[in-house]
Amino acid sequence: MSRRPSLTGSSATADQVAVRRHNLSLVLGHLRRHGDRSRARVAEETGLNKATVSSLVAELVERGLVSEGEAERGGVGRPAQAVGLDGRHLVALGAEINIDYLSVLALDLRGELVAERRVALDTAGMEPTRVLGELARVVREVLDGLDGRSRPVGLTVAVPGLVETATGTVFDAPNLRWQRTAAVAQLCADLDAPDYPVTLDNEANLAAVAELAARADAPPDDLLLLTGGAGVGGGMVAGGRLLRGGQGFAGEVGHMRVERAGARCGCGRTGCWETVVGLHTLLRLAADEGDPVRDPARDLVQRLDELRGRAAAGDTRTLAALTEVADWLTVGAGILVNVLNPQVLVLGGYFAALGPWFAEALEAGLQQEVFAPGSGGCRVEMSTLGFSAAVRGGALQALSVVFDDPTRAGLAPPARTTDDLATGATR
Amino acid sequence: MSRRPSLTGSSATADQVAVRRHNLSLVLGHLRRHGDRSRARVAEETGLNKATVSSLVAELVERGLVSEGEAERGGVGRPAQAVGLDGRHLVALGAEINIDYLSVLALDLRGELVAERRVALDTAGMEPTRVLGELARVVREVLDGLDGRSRPVGLTVAVPGLVETATGTVFDAPNLRWQRTAAVAQLCADLDAPDYPVTLDNEANLAAVAELAARADAPPDDLLLLTGGAGVGGGMVAGGRLLRGGQGFAGEVGHMRVERAGARCGCGRTGCWETVVGLHTLLRLAADEGDPVRDPARDLVQRLDELRGRAAAGDTRTLAALTEVADWLTVGAGILVNVLNPQVLVLGGYFAALGPWFAEALEAGLQQEVFAPGSGGCRVEMSTLGFSAAVRGGALQALSVVFDDPTRAGLAPPARTTDDLATGATR
Repeated sequence: MSRRPSLTGSSATADQVAVRRHNLSLVLGHLRRHGDRSRARVAEETGLNKATVSSLVAELVERGLVSEGEAERGGVGRPAQAVGLDGRHLVALGAEINIDYLSVLALDLRGELVAERRVALDTAGMEPTRVLGELARVVREVLDGLDGRSRPVGLTVAVPGLVETATGTVFDAPNLRWQRTAAVAQLCADLDAPDYPVTLDNEANLAAVAELAARADAPPDDLLLLTGGAGVGGGMVAGGRLLRGGQGFAGEVGHMRVERAGARCGCGRTGCWETVVGLHTLLRLAADEGDPVRDPARDLVQRLDELRGRAAAGDTRTLAALTEVADWLTVGAGILVNVLNPQVLVLGGYFAALGPWFAEALEAGLQQEVFAPGSGGCRVEMSTLGFSAAVRGGALQALSVVFDDPTRAGLAPPARTTDDLATGATR
Repeated sequence: MSRRPSLTGSSATADQVAVRRHNLSLVLGHLRRHGDRSRARVAEETGLNKATVSSLVAELVERGLVSEGEAERGGVGRPAQAVGLDGRHLVALGAEINIDYLSVLALDLRGELVAERRVALDTAGMEPTRVLGELARVVREVLDGLDGRSRPVGLTVAVPGLVETATGTVFDAPNLRWQRTAAVAQLCADLDAPDYPVTLDNEANLAAVAELAARADAPPDDLLLLTGGAGVGGGMVAGGRLLRGGQGFAGEVGHMRVERAGARCGCGRTGCWETVVGLHTLLRLAADEGDPVRDPARDLVQRLDELRGRAAAGDTRTLAALTEVADWLTVGAGILVNVLNPQVLVLGGYFAALGPWFAEALEAGLQQEVFAPGSGGCRVEMSTLGFSAAVRGGALQALSVVFDDPTRAGLAPPARTTDDLATGATR
């Protein structure tokens, strides 16, 4: 076992502890961004000295965050042993509560998908306590299904509405019909006081986090994510940072008024953007009541597949509904691109599922709507994360706790042999 | 004269020069934010050692940026001599080209107003070359009027439209009818190749810079400035930084489409927000052609005074016009507050001039329009900078060159006596 500084001992000042923590985070983040490499190379690339890097890596190994992998090839002399993120010992959980479904997703430290569960549920017709109880059940199911050695480090829950992250309260989520719901408190009770942090965030913010991570090779500084569901949310990255606003309530794009005398919205206002581009509006335009695509008990992905099939077959009513929604999508997106000038506009949720029917109209429409020439350089992309963007963003957010402060990973993982470490076979 | 490291000499490495420059900027910025104080106090508050601070202050004095002021009271022992920003030796210039006027403003290093000139001019009816020539004439007038010892350190020009700052080109300013105008190049030619940098920026961005500076005591992290003129611009500060977008074209709020089948805008589109809240719309609603308030040759401030007088006297047509514009102002502001969740919404330009007639309707309207309760904590404020916000922001921007890198202030100021320095009388 390597030397580790005492976190409370009198020999370590608060400053030394903070520097050590910062450097642990630096090395762990470096391995995340750049992949497995030797200690010598980490030292060279981070500017830390080799002895420090060796000590830091030893602590990260001890905490189960890093393990030794294959020897690095191509150097002169003895091949150096590479180290890299160890995906075996912990998982971060994301969860999502939405109108028609619940979902839970687990990522390992390497960001690899470990488990995913999706349950169709007509949440809007249920009491918040029942929905949260059901979510706790799904979380437990996912955890039970994992190799017992993977310890959860956090759970972040995505909700379509105003969220007070500090208190874990859903302030207002009209499509769920939730108001001032102490969601984190109840979830913690239902999960029998878990030893990992449980937090709450807006679903579009978390989806934007996932979209940014999906573009990690060349992350755009300015990204706008629009997530289409019963409601419409916006997740905005500006200058490389999530744009949250003064009270954390930025991105309520679904409630931009686009028609002065428009339809009544779930929030009580009229003319909100989501009244003309929300999922239920599209479904109402495309099909009569009783049509299976309008059945909230059926899985949404299947219903959208059905709709896509009808559009492909040239069904007039479906095509007219898609055109109508695409027109309004362009109006609202045009407003947002004029205001934010993003480099990339990502359509998520059902907008992406029906992407081929929206993309062309939207691209052309933005050229018209946006004052800056060439839509201000904004390209339209369809999310490839399907309905998992928010839940994946939740897991990434939960994971960030460990990357920000690797000492949060706590104790060493359960006993394992040196061989086990050296081969890194299960990574 | 104090020792100053050679900026090019072989003894100073590039790193040492950069560190020195950083520390000069640190000390100068500290004096700007916190006011006059002793070297010892600067050392204590910045964490730099006393000898370093003395050397840095000596260089700042030599460059004419700092001078010695009164002895600091209240300490134990010999009173220490305070040092502070020296406002005597340089000025930063802001300029603005707008539909009905040109203006030029000069600030000293302390941010104090040194000179301001405003010229009513129907710029939209003139060729860009004539407008720029006229602006150069006003700039020269302002410089000629200054004590010859105040050297200009920069000029930043505010324009209502899309600006490519890197090339100094006005990309598109429909209300001026300018397109791809190489404004900086021509202005430099008209000013006979000035030895200070000339730059260009969007007027609302610069107005937001001025509004932030006006709130320096408690600067909001998230501020939205709406500037009302013939066009309507938005300057947005998010997380403490100006939100510029991918190509620098963010904040084109005047071209948000708020009516699908609305009036034709100067940009060629229909339903743009500025077609219902722009100055000319208000004037058209409030008065017939030929009415003096619609005469672009008259000073705008006087015309707005006249309009305010009519409203105060209960003139029905004026009041109806103000109500109509206030309603639409609320719709667009509601969209922006839903998207950005600013802590403060500042109304500038003509919106502020008619503030008393808009504020109440807007405050109440936002409570309705904004999804987050209590308008998401957004308070409405009227700019107190009048039509000088953008031009003042331009001067502040020009000044920032010196605060970012005090060595840009170049040579020592003209000869002066030690007495002159010690009394700091003209500061």
